Amino acid sequence: VRLLLVGLGALGQGLLAHLDGLGPRLRDAYGLRARIVAALDTSGAVVRPEGVEPAVLLKAKRSREGLASLQPWYRPGRRALEIIHTVDADAVVEVTPTNILDGEPAMSHIRGALKARRHVVTANKGPIALAMPFLVSLAEEQGVMLRFSGTVGGGTPMLDFARQSLRGDRVVSIAGILNGTTNYILTKMFEGLGFDAALAEAQRLGYAEANPDYDVKGIDAGVKLAILANWAAGATLRVTDVSTRGIEGVSRADVDRARAAGQVIKLVCRYDGGKARVAPEALPLAHPLNVPGPLNAVTYTTEQLGDLTLVGKGAGGRETSAALLRDLIDIHLRTR
Amino acid sequence: VRLLLVGLGALGQGLLAHLDGLGPRLRDAYGLRARIVAALDTSGAVVRPEGVEPAVLLKAKRSREGLASLQPWYRPGRRALEIIHTVDADAVVEVTPTNILDGEPAMSHIRGALKARRHVVTANKGPIALAMPFLVSLAEEQGVMLRFSGTVGGGTPMLDFARQSLRGDRVVSIAGILNGTTNYILTKMFEGLGFDAALAEAQRLGYAEANPDYDVKGIDAGVKLAILANWAAGATLRVTDVSTRGIEGVSRADVDRARAAGQVIKLVCRYDGGKARVAPEALPLAHPLNVPGPLNAVTYTTEQLGDLTLVGKGAGGRETSAALLRDLIDIHLRTR
Repeated sequence: VRLLLVGLGALGQGLLAHLDGLGPRLRDAYGLRARIVAALDTSGAVVRPEGVEPAVLLKAKRSREGLASLQPWYRPGRRALEIIHTVDADAVVEVTPTNILDGEPAMSHIRGALKARRHVVTANKGPIALAMPFLVSLAEEQGVMLRFSGTVGGGTPMLDFARQSLRGDRVVSIAGILNGTTNYILTKMFEGLGFDAALAEAQRLGYAEANPDYDVKGIDAGVKLAILANWAAGATLRVTDVSTRGIEGVSRADVDRARAAGQVIKLVCRYDGGKARVAPEALPLAHPLNVPGPLNAVTYTTEQLGDLTLVGKGAGGRETSAALLRDLIDIHLRTR
Repeated sequence: VRLLLVGLGALGQGLLAHLDGLGPRLRDAYGLRARIVAALDTSGAVVRPEGVEPAVLLKAKRSREGLASLQPWYRPGRRALEIIHTVDADAVVEVTPTNILDGEPAMSHIRGALKARRHVVTANKGPIALAMPFLVSLAEEQGVMLRFSGTVGGGTPMLDFARQSLRGDRVVSIAGILNGTTNYILTKMFEGLGFDAALAEAQRLGYAEANPDYDVKGIDAGVKLAILANWAAGATLRVTDVSTRGIEGVSRADVDRARAAGQVIKLVCRYDGGKARVAPEALPLAHPLNVPGPLNAVTYTTEQLGDLTLVGKGAGGRETSAALLRDLIDIHLRTR
């Protein structure tokens, strides 16, 4: 599989590390030989049809010169679309930063890659949340695959599970803990910290962004819920259809009152009866969604099997790049 | 897909009910048209190459005459192997009763079907626990598929999840609650019943067999653990390799002592470091495997993603026959 890698931040580098470390296993277990024919960051692009070793790219990224150290293959300047259209590749991995306002630049990269008949793997929530139906049908028209299992659940394969392990059944409603940062903050508040101290600790551990609004106000959770409901339950939600309330109004007093009643406050995402909402809820301690710390959880209520709950680590570079790898293997197995 | 259905007990009838109720959806969503060209019970066989409607078979099974009412297609006598070899079919669904001593008669049916180059779907733990490596390689040699997702977890797709949703990763250890009957009994004991009363209630609800040893002594859990470890973690366990202790020695006093310490006794199945064992353990109340009643749960510890836990309903006719249907859809999608 010839790969074109757009974005070399934590996620892109995480995928490179996986490809570097797991190469022999991927060949033996799946017959997958990944050859990186181009890799791009904001400075420029490295293009080499014979392939660049993942370890060489990682070393360059960590050097002072960056990708520019990879002569004669380096081409300076932002030219993702040009390279997507001109470099011969089987799959494009899109891992630029998420932008949920208009999805750019990932939206253009993904659209361009699909139009050029490249398979696409992404963990970028922006384009998927904003335009899943359009992108999925574009991929179908072009006869290529679009995979985005890293957009929801981090490493926990919530999307794959719904489609691949529940065939013949139907998801009728969804409840989930989809944002690790807020779940970590609420867990710390349950243990006795105030909101500000809990947030500071989440930031110190790298869970929360410097500007935490995206997590704290429930926006990230809402975006993920839209993707999950559209993918797993066949909904047709736009991001703006999700009614969203974050945890910024949750006080220590609220948390203590819940605890005194044998309950715990969680930022719960629900899809039911065609409606989607994100809001803090008090759940019984024994509730399956009462998962601690940065974990994610989802309960699918299905027609045939009743409730199925999946719990695992949420976002994290290592976990999400494992999801990218899973998508690549899936595409490889379906196309060989 | 032309189906040959061996066994018309609760599971076989459950599959017929699914096929009857879901027919249009299976066609629309997966392009699957199932045609039952033969169906067998212990009395005889119904053979009709043009297909027999699921509803017609269900009605006959519920009639006083049974399958014999389906003239002129009925042939009396036990002749499964003969029919497997002579009736033209794409897939054989094997759902005769489980026998963990020698796997028969299912073992011969499955071996015969694979040799005749039929795909095989089964929920029968006997042959799979006793001879998974042999049967899997026989299927590969013959160029057909063998699917058995209903053998572990009932409707909860534990086996599918490990293989299909964790690609590129590796399961290094497993912990699970794999027997719904003992889990129900222990839940009731935690709530205050004695062992005998809890067992009687499980029997009344149809969870436990009239002879409950298979469940209570941990045999069923051990058989499932062997299948799960072999499939999900690449182990090579025989059933006799699983060290097995059941719940027959767990007293109300044990349960009460655990509860006073904030713990709950569960029949836990573990695979770790190449070793497998089933035994009662006291777990903290907040442990992810502390699932109530007849639920099943499994935690896979993986290299890349850490712990992933899946919880859902365990055995039950409706759930396990949904697993059979899932396997049929999987085979159909991979062969069309």
